Amino acid sequence: MAKTSRRQALRLGAALGSGALAQGEEARLLGTPLGPYGERSRHVTSVRTMRQTRTPEAGSSATPLAETYGIITPSALHYERHHAGIPDIDPATHTLTIHGLVERPLVLTMAELRRLPSVSRIHFLECGGNSGGEWGAKTGPDVQRSYGLASCSEWTGVPLRLLLEEVGLKPKASWLIAEGADACRMQRSVPIVAALDDAMLAYGQNGEPLRPAQGFPLRLLTPGWEGNVQVKWLRRLHVTDQPYMTRDETSKYSDLMPDGKARLFSLPQEAKSVITFPSGGHTLDRPALLELTGLAWSGRGRIERVEITFDGGATWRDARLDEPRFRLAFTRFRLPYRWDAKPAAIASRATDETGYVQPTREQLIAARGANSGYHFNGIKFWRIAAGGQVTNADA
Amino acid sequence: MAKTSRRQALRLGAALGSGALAQGEEARLLGTPLGPYGERSRHVTSVRTMRQTRTPEAGSSATPLAETYGIITPSALHYERHHAGIPDIDPATHTLTIHGLVERPLVLTMAELRRLPSVSRIHFLECGGNSGGEWGAKTGPDVQRSYGLASCSEWTGVPLRLLLEEVGLKPKASWLIAEGADACRMQRSVPIVAALDDAMLAYGQNGEPLRPAQGFPLRLLTPGWEGNVQVKWLRRLHVTDQPYMTRDETSKYSDLMPDGKARLFSLPQEAKSVITFPSGGHTLDRPALLELTGLAWSGRGRIERVEITFDGGATWRDARLDEPRFRLAFTRFRLPYRWDAKPAAIASRATDETGYVQPTREQLIAARGANSGYHFNGIKFWRIAAGGQVTNADA
Repeated sequence: MAKTSRRQALRLGAALGSGALAQGEEARLLGTPLGPYGERSRHVTSVRTMRQTRTPEAGSSATPLAETYGIITPSALHYERHHAGIPDIDPATHTLTIHGLVERPLVLTMAELRRLPSVSRIHFLECGGNSGGEWGAKTGPDVQRSYGLASCSEWTGVPLRLLLEEVGLKPKASWLIAEGADACRMQRSVPIVAALDDAMLAYGQNGEPLRPAQGFPLRLLTPGWEGNVQVKWLRRLHVTDQPYMTRDETSKYSDLMPDGKARLFSLPQEAKSVITFPSGGHTLDRPALLELTGLAWSGRGRIERVEITFDGGATWRDARLDEPRFRLAFTRFRLPYRWDAKPAAIASRATDETGYVQPTREQLIAARGANSGYHFNGIKFWRIAAGGQVTNADA
Repeated sequence: MAKTSRRQALRLGAALGSGALAQGEEARLLGTPLGPYGERSRHVTSVRTMRQTRTPEAGSSATPLAETYGIITPSALHYERHHAGIPDIDPATHTLTIHGLVERPLVLTMAELRRLPSVSRIHFLECGGNSGGEWGAKTGPDVQRSYGLASCSEWTGVPLRLLLEEVGLKPKASWLIAEGADACRMQRSVPIVAALDDAMLAYGQNGEPLRPAQGFPLRLLTPGWEGNVQVKWLRRLHVTDQPYMTRDETSKYSDLMPDGKARLFSLPQEAKSVITFPSGGHTLDRPALLELTGLAWSGRGRIERVEITFDGGATWRDARLDEPRFRLAFTRFRLPYRWDAKPAAIASRATDETGYVQPTREQLIAARGANSGYHFNGIKFWRIAAGGQVTNADA
């Protein structure tokens, strides 16, 4: 049937059914056609938040954790932490060089990398500075602005181990200096240790090539470790016998302890969790049965348990964990919750497969002081007022 | 440091280091700033393919399976099959009605649905007509145009079972008539059977609200069943004691058998697999070690085994399966493959947890004839010529 007559028939049918059509109604009858690329609904407006800054090339933007479902973070909403902006890299000319204490130095094109044996796994990525404001400085009013520098994706890439076998490590090889192709030539020293079993040179994220903000066309992925070491726009791996003590592993991403010394290379992100609903900025409009939910993760392995308190930590109940639970990935927890319009102080407490239990903020400060802006993983409280307003208890 | 002086410093530093800057070079030094929503690289251009049609509101668009990684399909590239276009629905006014043979009919707003207990799981979705051209009619030259009406996402929603318990099924209740809010008011009859354990009313896809092309704000998800029954833009579930024999379960999505009778309600998608690399349209440029890869899935459960043949089916080797393997989800398989520049006929053969082995095309036609354009799950061959050109062996 030709387009015109089909449309006429539709008009006639509709007119017979429910009276004359208002102008423009035909368009509403037939929806939008098929398309090459399916964007979001205009009613969906979640975005990453950024602090006001005069240097938007060096800063961070946060994932709207309270508006995400499940454990996958939409790639467009994955958190950012850049030190010199996002380079625009042509994958046809980008290369990775592996050299230094190796038998056979190697330069690989992206086409060569993509042809190698690969793996795909779901892993979280978290900035070492995520929730750093909770140490006592300025934290955010909601879960996005206080905990949003953490995201989770399905990553695809070449196992790092395979390439290290290919180049042949010399006896003294014990560190990799990973270097990015961004304007600051981000450099981080990466110890060659057992944890590298999980490491990959990632070119895929959630089924497609990495987004530019996550390192297109190639990033180092060392699952479970702080984000900064997982160098984006990766161009070089220099194999050495010692770390380089670069700017971003000394002046940044290290923890100044009470005795004046600094913790360096505290790479694995310890077990952590946060309730995303209800959380800061939400308002519970009336007493009702709700589903409390949130996310837990650990840089040491699988999440084994998440407990919830409604009374400021006096009593705890086990939350239900979504299955399957992946190593080094977000685990979604859920618990039915009847809010009775009384004030409450709610928090989650995660335990990982090593038996490590997420500490209180007070325990963390007793052990490490409060000089650091990094590696905060204390138990996180939200306060619910009698009127239903939810706020950050530590703001 | 103010923006101007910082930029001046950068210019100076770069000039000292490597001579004067060409115009525009500063912009390249500092990358793109942080942003609220991270789009793809301009170098990434995969899109869904569509057949030329005068009715782009009623047709399908296919996922570029050869260009996806892992098992998650990017939401923007999830296949489409629409019968009257994509409606533009305001979630603030959308409702779901559950009525018919129930004790307590129910109308739910989206806000009410989202507050209920929910689950998130990774499942494939496949059009009943996917790879229908392989029955003998016109198939496509590549995996996208022949097998691209299948995708896989992390879905989030409310278990259907929970809502059926809430409304209370009457004794004779045995079918649901699911109705969409699109212009054709898509209706499908859904048997209330054990398989509904997996069913959900889904509002989330890959961490965010459903994309409009996948049913925003709400769709029925009956994992493992043909896509058409998983009604998008879901507005109504009418509980009945019989199917309605709607247009899309009689004239469509049914299989005309050699004896003139039709298979109806053949809802579970049987075990199936396809090699995505190398596949139609690829050219292997020289003898080399490659990673053969592809996807397998079954509407009956987990994929247990995928075998690969390089010699037209004479001998088979086990592929490696990505772990963990989910029920009713894509499973990625991989196998190192040394192409020696000789002609080859390659295919994959999946076995699911019920022990069902994917049949040959010939076995399928012997059992069902070749009248149908639906539910083709035969073993799929690609032909590799001596020159490295890969083509659809059944085109």
